[in-house]
Amino acid sequence: MKYFNRDETICAVATGSSMSAIAVIRVSGPKAIRITNSVFSKNILNKKTHTVHFGNLIENNKIIDEVLVSIFKEGKSYTGEETTEISCHGSIYITKKIMEILVNNGCRSAIAGEFTLRAFKNGKLDLSQAESVADLIASENKSAHKTAINQLRGGFSNQLQNLRNQLIEFASLVELELDFSEEDVEFADKKKFLSLLNKIKVELKKLINSFELGNAIKNGIPVTIIGAPNSGKSTLLNTLLNEDKAIVSEIEGTTRDVIEDNINIEGIQFRFIDTAGIRKTKNKIEKIGIDKALENAKKSNIILHILDIKNNLIEQQEDFKKFKDKINGKIITVANKTDLIKVDTKKISDVIYISAKNKTGINDLKQKLIDSINTNEFLNDDTIITNIRHFEELQLSLSEINTIIEGIKINLTGDLLAVNIRQSLYHLGCITGEITSENLLDNIFGKFCIGK
Amino acid sequence: MKYFNRDETICAVATGSSMSAIAVIRVSGPKAIRITNSVFSKNILNKKTHTVHFGNLIENNKIIDEVLVSIFKEGKSYTGEETTEISCHGSIYITKKIMEILVNNGCRSAIAGEFTLRAFKNGKLDLSQAESVADLIASENKSAHKTAINQLRGGFSNQLQNLRNQLIEFASLVELELDFSEEDVEFADKKKFLSLLNKIKVELKKLINSFELGNAIKNGIPVTIIGAPNSGKSTLLNTLLNEDKAIVSEIEGTTRDVIEDNINIEGIQFRFIDTAGIRKTKNKIEKIGIDKALENAKKSNIILHILDIKNNLIEQQEDFKKFKDKINGKIITVANKTDLIKVDTKKISDVIYISAKNKTGINDLKQKLIDSINTNEFLNDDTIITNIRHFEELQLSLSEINTIIEGIKINLTGDLLAVNIRQSLYHLGCITGEITSENLLDNIFGKFCIGK
Repeated sequence: MKYFNRDETICAVATGSSMSAIAVIRVSGPKAIRITNSVFSKNILNKKTHTVHFGNLIENNKIIDEVLVSIFKEGKSYTGEETTEISCHGSIYITKKIMEILVNNGCRSAIAGEFTLRAFKNGKLDLSQAESVADLIASENKSAHKTAINQLRGGFSNQLQNLRNQLIEFASLVELELDFSEEDVEFADKKKFLSLLNKIKVELKKLINSFELGNAIKNGIPVTIIGAPNSGKSTLLNTLLNEDKAIVSEIEGTTRDVIEDNINIEGIQFRFIDTAGIRKTKNKIEKIGIDKALENAKKSNIILHILDIKNNLIEQQEDFKKFKDKINGKIITVANKTDLIKVDTKKISDVIYISAKNKTGINDLKQKLIDSINTNEFLNDDTIITNIRHFEELQLSLSEINTIIEGIKINLTGDLLAVNIRQSLYHLGCITGEITSENLLDNIFGKFCIGK
Repeated sequence: MKYFNRDETICAVATGSSMSAIAVIRVSGPKAIRITNSVFSKNILNKKTHTVHFGNLIENNKIIDEVLVSIFKEGKSYTGEETTEISCHGSIYITKKIMEILVNNGCRSAIAGEFTLRAFKNGKLDLSQAESVADLIASENKSAHKTAINQLRGGFSNQLQNLRNQLIEFASLVELELDFSEEDVEFADKKKFLSLLNKIKVELKKLINSFELGNAIKNGIPVTIIGAPNSGKSTLLNTLLNEDKAIVSEIEGTTRDVIEDNINIEGIQFRFIDTAGIRKTKNKIEKIGIDKALENAKKSNIILHILDIKNNLIEQQEDFKKFKDKINGKIITVANKTDLIKVDTKKISDVIYISAKNKTGINDLKQKLIDSINTNEFLNDDTIITNIRHFEELQLSLSEINTIIEGIKINLTGDLLAVNIRQSLYHLGCITGEITSENLLDNIFGKFCIGK
């Protein structure tokens, strides 16, 4: 990280950028308290850590704002460094002005993620915890929040530490065996080795497999809406979105506008994908659209198959069968347009009857969506991998374990196995940051908010 | 204020609504510390005021976030009430969740301005100071910031208190005179009364007159760009805007996008108004456009008259003379398109030569704009009225003073004068909030940010 220099004191606005009641500016580094003191109306040089002081932020004897200054002494702050937090009025002019004054008094304006980078460099967090801070800030729903806070609290770090300890134990066993000649290696030992490695392998695989779920948690579980033309797919999407928007609008400034089709149901994020209507056709252009719809459906965990109640439901289900082999996820069958025709809703079992137009039956559909994913997966305390970097390192680590297992089977010597053990440990170390490169750090912290 | 109830503890997110490193939730009221304590991992019930505590925000034994809690005891906070500030990660999910938990534990979600309303009701601020808090938060430039911070610091309040004291002194003098019969009122006394009243009148007028400037500071000093068609008016506006935008883009999330034609030059806000080209015409539609341009020019403090260097400059200036009587503000003459023709820039004095297209001469123009307003007005420490409510109350107060002066001249009795004195005092009291109505408070605090 070309910017990291312990001697510098950095500052940044840590709160949201919109006009607001208050804004907080963070200052961290060896001169944080001295610099803050030089622009503050009260002497805070000898104040205790974790105390708050009300006074004026001053420039050339002029009062810029009435502020609160919180003091955190070295070793007792987020970054591990001497830190102050200046809480001022949330005016864009004032925050900019205070930043300018701090810079004029010896601070450097922090780059994205620099406070957390310092926390990492000072051993307050490992790398996977630092990454979870960004995930936590970005979390928009219950499940994403849960995985991030677990990771921040060190759940994943502990698991990795366990894996590393097991691998180190294995390494020492292998080294022990090296004292004997190759033929002395007992079958019993070999079995013990393999058993230990398999245990590691199972744990690694579990973490690796959690990534698909983690990804769904982070980006929303893909749900493709599929059905005949004019069956009301887009109306349904709008109905789902509108209801959701009404709920979401209570919170100012959510980013929902960007991903128009993400819907949060009971704290779980679903990503709805509307598609072209599918039917038998000879029109080439239309066929491309249908292929695309099916392609999306193939990648989705859940498919909402929309039937048009005006037409024969059984026939529509039969028609759909020829597409079914192209789909992987769970299919939820929805009969739409109950506003038009009175139907016997018990006629076909396992069909949800709705009117997307009149917004009836939508709660049943939502419940079905929640039921159709294994909610236990979302609610238990197992570690869930959400970060592709971790996923890749875990895969590389697993691949080394597999090589070791193969090696033992063909009686490779301990010194040859040791190479792969080291590599496997290396990849785990990359996750927690025991092994890092400057490029990797730039990459990780560059994605952070300014001020974190 | 129908919502004001001292027994309730209120909470709100006080920082900006966008995703950010940290967010701050404010809790104020008689149970602020108890409620915060009930959702916090550490016992903060007996902690000192102005201390900060790191711990976990908890719901049903689950950790929602790692937070900092600051404690402010009754009488030592912004609102004057027991207050806590919870500094959490700036995730929209987390802030919403913590608000929900606080409400479930006995808080009420605060309405706009409710914290400052409480500060006012608890005597921490007078009404004009409370209003300045909203102005301070909204301040986008140096001069708006300066008037707001002066008002918050009580400059205006002190001046009003002085005026009130003078009026009360006058009232007591009048009452004193009431002990005597009318004919006993000496000419000397009458002169003293009038002199005192005139002093009050001058001060009131000064404040009232500052409103025009205050308004310009708040909304930008209007500058109309006027000139022949195709003289490059819009190019100039874009050039001014683009340069400004480049500067402004350093600050995230400024609201500049909304008022596209506001430009901040050396801390002073200008509001540029582009107009239709003016020329002699018989076309009715075009005439309407030209009339509109002149109407704007009439209301502007500054007019930028753009000449096209390709045509005869003297002639263009002569042509413009016939419009001059329709304009009030200061005219700055700008010769545009120096990129097209090499000119002797000394040929006509007091003309700024620019190329809006090539962005040359723009700094000269900006300097001229700054020079053309009386910058002293912006920089001295006189109180500037920016609030129309204050402006109106001051006018009403002045009108009563004028009535009193007329009354003395026609030898009205003291008891009749007293009615007007009371009214004059009443209007001053409305500004500081000594006299308020619930409607007025609703109106004032309803315009605040949530969380302030």
